[in-house]
Amino acid sequence: MAQEQKKFENAITPRSEDYSQWYLDIIAAADLAEYAPVKGCMIIKPYGYAIWEQVQKVLDEEFKTKGVQNAYFPLLIPEKLLKREEQHVEGFAPEVAVVTHAGGEKLDEPYVIRPTSETIMYEVFSGWVHSYRDLPLLINQWANVVRWELRTKPFLRTTEFLWQEGHTVHKTLEEADAFAREMSEVYEKFARNYMAIPVIRGAKSDAERFAGAHTTYTCEAMMQDGKALQYATSHNLGDNFAKAFNIQFLNEQNELVYGYQTSWGLSTRSIGGLIMTHSDDKGLVLPPKMASIKVVIIPIFKEETKAEVLPVALILKEKLEKTLGTRAVHVDDRDNLRMGEKIYEWEKKGVPVRIEIGPKDIEKEEFVLSRRDTGEKEGIKYNNDTFGEAVEDILERIQNNLLEVAEIRLNENTVEVDSWEEFISSIEAGKFVLAHWDGTGKTEKIIKEETGATIRCVPFNIKEETGACVKTGALSKGRVLFARAY
Amino acid sequence: MAQEQKKFENAITPRSEDYSQWYLDIIAAADLAEYAPVKGCMIIKPYGYAIWEQVQKVLDEEFKTKGVQNAYFPLLIPEKLLKREEQHVEGFAPEVAVVTHAGGEKLDEPYVIRPTSETIMYEVFSGWVHSYRDLPLLINQWANVVRWELRTKPFLRTTEFLWQEGHTVHKTLEEADAFAREMSEVYEKFARNYMAIPVIRGAKSDAERFAGAHTTYTCEAMMQDGKALQYATSHNLGDNFAKAFNIQFLNEQNELVYGYQTSWGLSTRSIGGLIMTHSDDKGLVLPPKMASIKVVIIPIFKEETKAEVLPVALILKEKLEKTLGTRAVHVDDRDNLRMGEKIYEWEKKGVPVRIEIGPKDIEKEEFVLSRRDTGEKEGIKYNNDTFGEAVEDILERIQNNLLEVAEIRLNENTVEVDSWEEFISSIEAGKFVLAHWDGTGKTEKIIKEETGATIRCVPFNIKEETGACVKTGALSKGRVLFARAY
Repeated sequence: MAQEQKKFENAITPRSEDYSQWYLDIIAAADLAEYAPVKGCMIIKPYGYAIWEQVQKVLDEEFKTKGVQNAYFPLLIPEKLLKREEQHVEGFAPEVAVVTHAGGEKLDEPYVIRPTSETIMYEVFSGWVHSYRDLPLLINQWANVVRWELRTKPFLRTTEFLWQEGHTVHKTLEEADAFAREMSEVYEKFARNYMAIPVIRGAKSDAERFAGAHTTYTCEAMMQDGKALQYATSHNLGDNFAKAFNIQFLNEQNELVYGYQTSWGLSTRSIGGLIMTHSDDKGLVLPPKMASIKVVIIPIFKEETKAEVLPVALILKEKLEKTLGTRAVHVDDRDNLRMGEKIYEWEKKGVPVRIEIGPKDIEKEEFVLSRRDTGEKEGIKYNNDTFGEAVEDILERIQNNLLEVAEIRLNENTVEVDSWEEFISSIEAGKFVLAHWDGTGKTEKIIKEETGATIRCVPFNIKEETGACVKTGALSKGRVLFARAY
Repeated sequence: MAQEQKKFENAITPRSEDYSQWYLDIIAAADLAEYAPVKGCMIIKPYGYAIWEQVQKVLDEEFKTKGVQNAYFPLLIPEKLLKREEQHVEGFAPEVAVVTHAGGEKLDEPYVIRPTSETIMYEVFSGWVHSYRDLPLLINQWANVVRWELRTKPFLRTTEFLWQEGHTVHKTLEEADAFAREMSEVYEKFARNYMAIPVIRGAKSDAERFAGAHTTYTCEAMMQDGKALQYATSHNLGDNFAKAFNIQFLNEQNELVYGYQTSWGLSTRSIGGLIMTHSDDKGLVLPPKMASIKVVIIPIFKEETKAEVLPVALILKEKLEKTLGTRAVHVDDRDNLRMGEKIYEWEKKGVPVRIEIGPKDIEKEEFVLSRRDTGEKEGIKYNNDTFGEAVEDILERIQNNLLEVAEIRLNENTVEVDSWEEFISSIEAGKFVLAHWDGTGKTEKIIKEETGATIRCVPFNIKEETGACVKTGALSKGRVLFARAY
């Protein structure tokens, strides 16, 4: 058994050995995705896609309670539209895929596959917005986008990815800014309360801002190797795009004025963050709220005890699904695998709770629940009235524990640094570094070149203080967050 | 008021005058979609997209109860993959959009944007299927596809459209065939029970079969002009693709054999069918089960009665949404529109039930419910315990009535025809024609050229009889369904 376990675990490279390979091994071992026969693209397999479905379900409802409505805009964007906003085209033109032929003919004007939909949407919004009564216009789209990336990695960076992109028009800059911050908060809450990922929220520096935005807000998460992952962003676009796409409306004073806009997105990249935050050397670890299968029941039987054990497993499944939801409990009744093999498989897949049921457990009316996060086992006496609650309770504790562990990691590895030597050693050690910066793009660039660290954000909840830039010694208006990033 | 009504109604061309223009007017009047600044593409606006969301919600659950799992495959398909199955490439090559450049460079090998995903999926399936234990493999994908169409029409035929495409692998031809039929049944039930669209189910003729399929099953619906709409199809692909893509498995006897496959899809085209089945000259008519807003409440107030009336409207909304679902009831409290304008707007949008609430209604504790389908009004005495049920009851009657009306139309306009003269006149009159056919593609082609009618299907539930082909007089093994089609 011990040897067998070793064999299975060996399929996953330990984090300490090669973090990057560990990540790829987890994805393969948990059957989340695989490379596609298309450059830089992946196939999201059912078990991985189920995570995305949960993202969609939760966020979609959040958006709708904020008054956001879904719509669908074309995949293909006339090249000339993409060029309308100057900074935007600079940012995206180098990475677009271009359709030059269709229906057997060369096109008069090429189309680009949307890398994001600001341009096509805002061209259309200009026809939707006429009066202050039409505002705010709050639109979201669940869609695929394509960005021709050179270095790709499943979920984290793929040529095609899935996301939601919200796009709004408001009456004032203040209202747009408040909405962009509000959506950033939605992302933070989703990260914390569902994915169990704590994030640091703040504004991006000019260099890291979205192409064409006034201000970019971000949620930055810390992976287990200390690198930052940009979890989701929301942009206050000011009136940059409104001017480029002529989005004007008559205000209450009957004056024709430009609208102010936001856009905000979360992509399948967040699943990469989920994997890297909680998983261990045994495989994927899923927070219960993101797990499609929350409980796996493994009935232990021989040919002669099958008729006794299997029905109990199915009854338990039915019972638990009443509170946990349809298909949230899986009974693994395969007869071609040994018990150990099944256990390792479900560990690799990160199912939060495993229940093994054998004739003896049924006799004792007590079942052993194994937690995926801690590996702890708890024997629970079966009681028809309370068993469901007991399982829910364990799931809740797992959810909370994962957040707590991630939070401790983030706090312990976020340091204030005041000297350049300390800065270098902290970045080398994989820390999030809060340091003073002189506010110039030049210094930001030098720091990046010398250490690989970028400014992740100017955190919202940081104490106000002036200081000396960690690199140049020049006046700094406050600390910003530096880290190496995915 | 009468004049005002006329003015609003005039925005929609009557069906009798120009059916095709009526359809476009309905879409504009109900704010479902608009043309995009991209050839042949449309923008699905929030009110139209909400219908698609309902389609997704219902069908996705149906698929999952059948054991189907969602996944996601790349948008871009290497051109050489598309060419692997001979009939398939013949069918789709002429209408694909081709990506030749990306990331600023010319690609070594062009990619086509998926017109459907058989090729890319089956290339990958060949790596997923090894043993009979891996079967059946039941995969579905919600995605966008692109087919370069010359003549487009919103929802019915657009260059890009949204759909679901199911793809499965089975052990035997019989099992694949049964599954394709089962999914065809799912589509029929969805059409009937949700969209209130009765369909005729059957198999396609060789000429109308999906490119590369063994058998294609279809659900054919009748539009108000008598034309047929192919509502959804499911294909028994036999082992055609399995052989082209090398999908093989070891069966129980340890022999390496090819799998048998199905694919099946329903697209945003079904929304075109929904619009054309129920709508009238006043605008869209939505079956309650497909309506995002099932009830609209229009509070009638002046400045001095607003504080009395509006809260009642909001209480009613809250009460009704407990059974009808969040956001299923809309309170139209806009103060810049007159009552008449509001009524026409909600009629155009096809909301099933309208409730007007004024001070007098509140005093009498009786509210008038207006049915969008029949225009009938019903006064309902307010009772806290039964009001919700009364509204649900009306919604159910509307749902049933719409199906009944559509069913009568289908039955009354489906005729058995035995002579060529009758055939021509019946097709001219916009009928579904059940006629004998000699089974040859040659005759099928001649009939199409002379009358514009195609074989919609060989219906499942047709009486067995032999006869003489309506065109050639040659032996026929049974009647088939002819009609002009969208």
